[in-house]
Amino acid sequence: MNGGATAAARAHSNIALVKYWGKRDATLNTPAVGSISVTLDALYTDTRVTFRSDLTDDELWLDGCRSDATRVRRVLDLVRGYAASAGHPAGGQHAVVSSTNNFPTGAGLASSASGFAALVVAATGAAGLALPARELSILARHGSGSAARSIFGGFAEMHAGTASDGSDSYAEELQGRSAWPLAVAVAITERGEKSINSTIGMVESAATSPFYPAWLDSADGDLAEMRAAIAARDFTRLGELTEYNCLKLHALMLSTRPALIYWNAATVAAMHAVRELRSGGVPAYFTIDAGPQVKVLCLPGDAEVVRQALAAVPGVHEVRMSTLGPGAYRLE
Amino acid sequence: MNGGATAAARAHSNIALVKYWGKRDATLNTPAVGSISVTLDALYTDTRVTFRSDLTDDELWLDGCRSDATRVRRVLDLVRGYAASAGHPAGGQHAVVSSTNNFPTGAGLASSASGFAALVVAATGAAGLALPARELSILARHGSGSAARSIFGGFAEMHAGTASDGSDSYAEELQGRSAWPLAVAVAITERGEKSINSTIGMVESAATSPFYPAWLDSADGDLAEMRAAIAARDFTRLGELTEYNCLKLHALMLSTRPALIYWNAATVAAMHAVRELRSGGVPAYFTIDAGPQVKVLCLPGDAEVVRQALAAVPGVHEVRMSTLGPGAYRLE
Repeated sequence: MNGGATAAARAHSNIALVKYWGKRDATLNTPAVGSISVTLDALYTDTRVTFRSDLTDDELWLDGCRSDATRVRRVLDLVRGYAASAGHPAGGQHAVVSSTNNFPTGAGLASSASGFAALVVAATGAAGLALPARELSILARHGSGSAARSIFGGFAEMHAGTASDGSDSYAEELQGRSAWPLAVAVAITERGEKSINSTIGMVESAATSPFYPAWLDSADGDLAEMRAAIAARDFTRLGELTEYNCLKLHALMLSTRPALIYWNAATVAAMHAVRELRSGGVPAYFTIDAGPQVKVLCLPGDAEVVRQALAAVPGVHEVRMSTLGPGAYRLE
Repeated sequence: MNGGATAAARAHSNIALVKYWGKRDATLNTPAVGSISVTLDALYTDTRVTFRSDLTDDELWLDGCRSDATRVRRVLDLVRGYAASAGHPAGGQHAVVSSTNNFPTGAGLASSASGFAALVVAATGAAGLALPARELSILARHGSGSAARSIFGGFAEMHAGTASDGSDSYAEELQGRSAWPLAVAVAITERGEKSINSTIGMVESAATSPFYPAWLDSADGDLAEMRAAIAARDFTRLGELTEYNCLKLHALMLSTRPALIYWNAATVAAMHAVRELRSGGVPAYFTIDAGPQVKVLCLPGDAEVVRQALAAVPGVHEVRMSTLGPGAYRLE
């Protein structure tokens, strides 16, 4: 028996209210702009990591299927570095990683965010390490920029940082989820995988969009305004800024050459449904990431009317409701 | 009997391949960027102007209904100025203007372009003036920026100009329509009026979009590339640049605060249908103005397959086919 050191963890997906697009350093995976997100209770990844002495390479099982372990290996290498320094046997071992999402993988629902956050918590746990949240966030960033935020619950801010080693490029909690309960509806308009990988899209935007410099320059203003809206618990301000920042991101994508068009017909129909809700007096605001799904922020008391309005949009397959979620944690 | 001096004219709508958005001078109605368009044979306005000594004000009849004559009066005042200098009685008279479109008014099909071009040709004709095309283009600009291009057929370029009196802000023909026959399909996705007036939208973009300076700065490059594509009759280059410039315009609109969202579900479905046509080997490229309609450029031999693909898109009510049209001309 070579069961080895094992641990499991759960991390929740998050959606950015102020978006990240563009990399500062591709090797360190540091973002070109900061971002602010909410963690979602309803969408999560469970991951188990087992270091074993009998393996010749890392193995990734994603929703039961053997998958490419390249990005996982990059994070595990860093965890092995910590473990070796601490004299833990995991420092010299490969690992089996099994991960399951309770939502469609790779369809713009930030499965890499929850996935890499869960991986980091499980892997460091299996390697006997007790790292501070900031270190966990940095480790998660190496897997996926948005994963750095899923270490935390409630409202989290990711700092772009300026250090050449990426040591100041991490997320931290802005406000806990219980301080300001909000609801998020996720309208699934397409079940398949998205067509354009985000990392490649970011490189193309930086290389070709005439709007990329202004995207970078205008980020700090949006971050400051969003921090103020969260601190003041001003939902109108938070919502309007969320929608503006989302549309600015998609504007950047559309002005990339060739264009990055992530929307489908139902995406746009859902956007209009949200604007109609507002015209009817229901404060609801949409945001959309690098995929066709539409996420809608609202107050908990309006969650049902928002769900119904989205479910009635032609092309919306399913509406998942969520409240704000907790940070990543060990299972068992 | 006070029949007065009368003349009628026909002018065709145009669609910009390199778009105009933003004003240099609101009073002179000079654009902040140049533009290049094709004039469309299938969409036109017929306008009759009659100067009469018994009128106390100008009257506008649009598709049979009495309408607000404010913008028409501004153009007629300029025409009266020319007529007075020439000693023509129209210089001191008001006019009845009756105008009919053969397509839906105000739905993003550039009815103001064909409308003001027809007005200028009819009004100057009724006033006994024989002005050069450049002067007609400047007069039309005072009514609507895009109308300056509808004085010409085939491919026309509008110059933004730099003169403080607007005297170098006019359109001219780049290439006649017979030199390079192209087809344009217009997919009507909404019959109603558009929700946001273009002039107001332009002011809001200039005031609020962080992308507006880059929009202005990148225009000359697009104009030069489009001129080269037209001169070389390189359809792929013309099409790709048309689509890129259209998406850049909508990116600017989306990044305006509050956002200018002109697309509906069918608009986006039609965009994807065009991209699928290209994947299937049919060179077709979309462009969209400040409205939900989708205009698709293709080669004449592909017109029928493009028409069928657009007609099959859910939410497309009608597809109008056009070839390139002539410049504005006197009727009778």
